[in-house]
Amino acid sequence: MNEHGGSALLTDHYELTMVQAALHSGAAARPSVFEMFARRLPEGRRYGVVGGTGRFLDLVERFRFRTEDLDFLSDNGVVDETTLRWLSEYRFSGNVWGYGEGEAYFPGSPILVVEGTFAESVLLETLALSVFNHDSAIASAASRMVVASGGRPLIEMGSRRTHEGAAVAAARAAYMAGFATSSNLEAGRSYGVPTGGTAAHAFTLLHDSERHAFTSQLDSLGRGTTLLVDTYDVERAVRTAVDLAGPELGAVRIDSGDLAATATRVRAQLDSLGASDTRIVVTGDLDELSIQALAVAPVDGYGVGTSLVTGSGAPTVSLVYKLVARARDLAAGTPLEPVAKRSVGKPSRGGRKWAMRRLDDKGIAIAEEVFPHVPEAAVNVRPLLRPLMADGEVIGRESVHEARERHRAVVAELPEQALRMSRGEAALPTVFH
Amino acid sequence: MNEHGGSALLTDHYELTMVQAALHSGAAARPSVFEMFARRLPEGRRYGVVGGTGRFLDLVERFRFRTEDLDFLSDNGVVDETTLRWLSEYRFSGNVWGYGEGEAYFPGSPILVVEGTFAESVLLETLALSVFNHDSAIASAASRMVVASGGRPLIEMGSRRTHEGAAVAAARAAYMAGFATSSNLEAGRSYGVPTGGTAAHAFTLLHDSERHAFTSQLDSLGRGTTLLVDTYDVERAVRTAVDLAGPELGAVRIDSGDLAATATRVRAQLDSLGASDTRIVVTGDLDELSIQALAVAPVDGYGVGTSLVTGSGAPTVSLVYKLVARARDLAAGTPLEPVAKRSVGKPSRGGRKWAMRRLDDKGIAIAEEVFPHVPEAAVNVRPLLRPLMADGEVIGRESVHEARERHRAVVAELPEQALRMSRGEAALPTVFH
Repeated sequence: MNEHGGSALLTDHYELTMVQAALHSGAAARPSVFEMFARRLPEGRRYGVVGGTGRFLDLVERFRFRTEDLDFLSDNGVVDETTLRWLSEYRFSGNVWGYGEGEAYFPGSPILVVEGTFAESVLLETLALSVFNHDSAIASAASRMVVASGGRPLIEMGSRRTHEGAAVAAARAAYMAGFATSSNLEAGRSYGVPTGGTAAHAFTLLHDSERHAFTSQLDSLGRGTTLLVDTYDVERAVRTAVDLAGPELGAVRIDSGDLAATATRVRAQLDSLGASDTRIVVTGDLDELSIQALAVAPVDGYGVGTSLVTGSGAPTVSLVYKLVARARDLAAGTPLEPVAKRSVGKPSRGGRKWAMRRLDDKGIAIAEEVFPHVPEAAVNVRPLLRPLMADGEVIGRESVHEARERHRAVVAELPEQALRMSRGEAALPTVFH
Repeated sequence: MNEHGGSALLTDHYELTMVQAALHSGAAARPSVFEMFARRLPEGRRYGVVGGTGRFLDLVERFRFRTEDLDFLSDNGVVDETTLRWLSEYRFSGNVWGYGEGEAYFPGSPILVVEGTFAESVLLETLALSVFNHDSAIASAASRMVVASGGRPLIEMGSRRTHEGAAVAAARAAYMAGFATSSNLEAGRSYGVPTGGTAAHAFTLLHDSERHAFTSQLDSLGRGTTLLVDTYDVERAVRTAVDLAGPELGAVRIDSGDLAATATRVRAQLDSLGASDTRIVVTGDLDELSIQALAVAPVDGYGVGTSLVTGSGAPTVSLVYKLVARARDLAAGTPLEPVAKRSVGKPSRGGRKWAMRRLDDKGIAIAEEVFPHVPEAAVNVRPLLRPLMADGEVIGRESVHEARERHRAVVAELPEQALRMSRGEAALPTVFH
């Protein structure tokens, strides 16, 4: 949102000039279908995760051209008077279906289907792509980290490494994909993501000594707090920490050095000091591969920053939003005709689509199936498109907690090879019927 | 900002718990200096570009804990009552200096210096890092693209590939670094970035034929518009375009295929049809290297999306915000003492710093010089820190246009090797005095 709370200018200039030209030609009102999909997964990834559905629905509800927006468009000659009048009354009135947030997706999966007039539907293109490309990139990276962590809790702490608004969305997407907590307070306020954190090196440096700093933190935050032990000398800090807090010390955090070796030494030291319930949290440039490599180390939690908020090498996931069908005229009952461009290397597949996930007898996913019509119900298939908006009203709103539950179930259903950290192909074939 | 316009919760949980514990220990009010710097440039980069200064100043002015923020913090037990009261009155009252927006930076350059009490200054850490890490990543990538383009105009069109709020900041940073225009309308409204755009493939597919689509666009947007010619067959589309618009056709856009070869063919075709003033704009997965490779092709403008908004391989630039000095007590006149952690691999350099750029007799930059005191004025050195805030008031506000002018001058001053596209080391040594 911009500072007056609207979302309509979070949009490419050309969406509005297309509306102008289509109003001029009369085609603006043609019934149309747009679909969002990815032609491929990011290099080496075995599955993608849909993120952003909930945020998109919130933003579509705020997608109105307000006076200050229209004044800007008018003053800068972006569109003509006819179009300004049309925009001033704009309100999406169509239907939207989508994969559930947290669902896995594969190349060609139609993760969003938007049905309305051309003009009202094309206007949502930029916003839809921004939200889903970002949030799905984060959710897809986060999901792999959760798999790699083998059940140990993950803490999202990447706010400082990404745009301040993207940080809130990233915290939400990471939680949805299974992270335990986030450092981002706005994600707590807006979405109910559990937040956490205790202290940084600056807090230790501020005080006259590490002992003074630890004493202050324990007095104020309690013995269950996490003390950061690598500002000066880890061994001395751990000794000081247990000396001051006793065995009830919640956790120590290690943010530098060889994390596996340091964690092993610190575990032995904590145990020898009687603090065997004190946990060890490691942070510092972790990604899914280093998390997996730490599986054998005595680590109780991972803090992940940069790699999470940058999608671990794939900060965007190349989702596109394409016109796949439109009616040739406006008369009631005119059939929608498939349309598709033939650009070199970027072909599209015309026609409205429906999708199911096929499972084997053990409930393991074996294929993504895409149909040009509503498929018949069958055993061992799970429909993937849910109704999200009907006649412009949001009907598919869910909390991030519901999306998180879906994601957990969806990952459990994926074949074993989908969950390998090594680079590979899409774990399921997409079958177009 | 969140939807009520505040920025204070765009912050890590631990900043607030540190404030709580420091209020408890009495150290919260110790005069302190924090500095923001990068230990290194992104792999292979020869210079970095400071981006985000203007946005940071705007956000600091809105950094207030409002009722809904305090309610969230209270309801979730983030901090205690004493801290809530302190936060409710929070307003940064210190001083800030920074490199000018658009300035080049190198490893160790102190691009932001924040002076205030520990508590008031540490609270700005997350927001400062979010803004500068994002905007500097985009500005740094954009600057290289501008160099690679050799004066041909660059169009920023990456909104759809990044978070919707990050998209606005990215458009601003790209314009600051020399891009000609952006597709992002909110960047136009908020920052005066020139916006542009005409039509996508969907517009052609909507109509009954490409000829029908082009006619509609030309009628509505005028002959100076840009027609997208690769929906079906480029040669046929160019013929149709000139047939309809005549030699006054503004431009054609090519978004797929071998851009150099296609542009060469289209140039010859346009010339043969008498449309020698019609420009050719190319788009489609361009980055600084492919832009440079197209230098020999008859291309009049480049549209850049994904690579720009993802920082062309470096979506964040590892800026950190570190406590470098603090007074040991609160008595007036107590000297600030340097502080620095000794974490393995992450050493920091204590003490407040000042920076100058040293130039040779021809005005070419030869070194980044960092001093532990205010350096004496001298010929052939340019001071780099500008006053941005004094006693909590913004005094260094600039428009993005002023930052753009600075960036242009700064790039002109860099040595030739800084502007090579190949991977290399930092183009200037950072000398610590």
